[in-house]
Amino acid sequence: MRILGIDPGLQTTGFGVIDADGPRLAYVASGTIKTNKVAAGELPARIKILYDGIREVVARYAPQCAAVEIVFVNVNPQSTLLLGQARGAALTGLVSCDLPVSEYTALQMKKAIVGHGHAKKEQIQAMVQRLLNLPGLPGKDAADALGLAIMHAHASVSFAAMSKQTPLARRQHAQFRGGRTY
Amino acid sequence: MRILGIDPGLQTTGFGVIDADGPRLAYVASGTIKTNKVAAGELPARIKILYDGIREVVARYAPQCAAVEIVFVNVNPQSTLLLGQARGAALTGLVSCDLPVSEYTALQMKKAIVGHGHAKKEQIQAMVQRLLNLPGLPGKDAADALGLAIMHAHASVSFAAMSKQTPLARRQHAQFRGGRTY
Repeated sequence: MRILGIDPGLQTTGFGVIDADGPRLAYVASGTIKTNKVAAGELPARIKILYDGIREVVARYAPQCAAVEIVFVNVNPQSTLLLGQARGAALTGLVSCDLPVSEYTALQMKKAIVGHGHAKKEQIQAMVQRLLNLPGLPGKDAADALGLAIMHAHASVSFAAMSKQTPLARRQHAQFRGGRTY
Repeated sequence: MRILGIDPGLQTTGFGVIDADGPRLAYVASGTIKTNKVAAGELPARIKILYDGIREVVARYAPQCAAVEIVFVNVNPQSTLLLGQARGAALTGLVSCDLPVSEYTALQMKKAIVGHGHAKKEQIQAMVQRLLNLPGLPGKDAADALGLAIMHAHASVSFAAMSKQTPLARRQHAQFRGGRTY
């Protein structure tokens, strides 16, 4: 299964693509989509760069599913609104390619990758490098996106195992898992 | 010039299409895109309905430009985030069809249509009915969207007139106009 992880942002959106064969993971690609080529005020132009970028990544690497970070409200409501619009554009790019989209919080991703929810960016980068056996540290935005893809791979393995379990174990597992899949 | 007005929302997005020939306006179509066919929690599915709906409207009525309401932060930050994502999806639908997008606040639209910024929904509906010579009252969401299209038609007429003016008059006019065009 090829998984695309997306860490959405208005200025920089990270993406990471991995191949997951059961518990085995392989790095495919990662990078960022930057919208700072146009002026900050030009929201529709930025939205278009983001949407086109997402679709280009999907066309190039042909993932079978996507995992997108659930963003949170900011102290600045105006920033929340802008981040929301960026995430809306990223989601639109994915669903316009008919990709099934799962959503995870940064907390879930950090717990899955580093082991606790207070992990720093550098710890995520280091663990992603180890888990994917990369020759160097991935960039911060790309590391978050790769982390989301890895988290989804783990969740999918658990999900496959879950289908062989009893209804009670399945229910407990679902509580533990927390990810929302569509 | 055929103009598409969009009043974005996560549950209901209003659209209105008019033809503007200088100061003459003609109604073409209006309606709403509703995303309540899927469960409230399923954001990617709702985003897809919105994106597909916008593109369907553009394909059917072939507008040359779009006017989209600038949304504001809500008292509930979570609602702000959801509305932002809906607006992001609507903008994405428009720019994915290569439509030039202008943005106006509800205040600008109300001032342009009713004459003051505190207009109620019913007043907008009544004025839109009169301005477009409609046989009945348009729905509230559709009326807002038609109001945005009418506002953009007025702004475009003013813009054409403006190009014949002196630099000083142009500057004063730009202050008055306020709309952001991309």
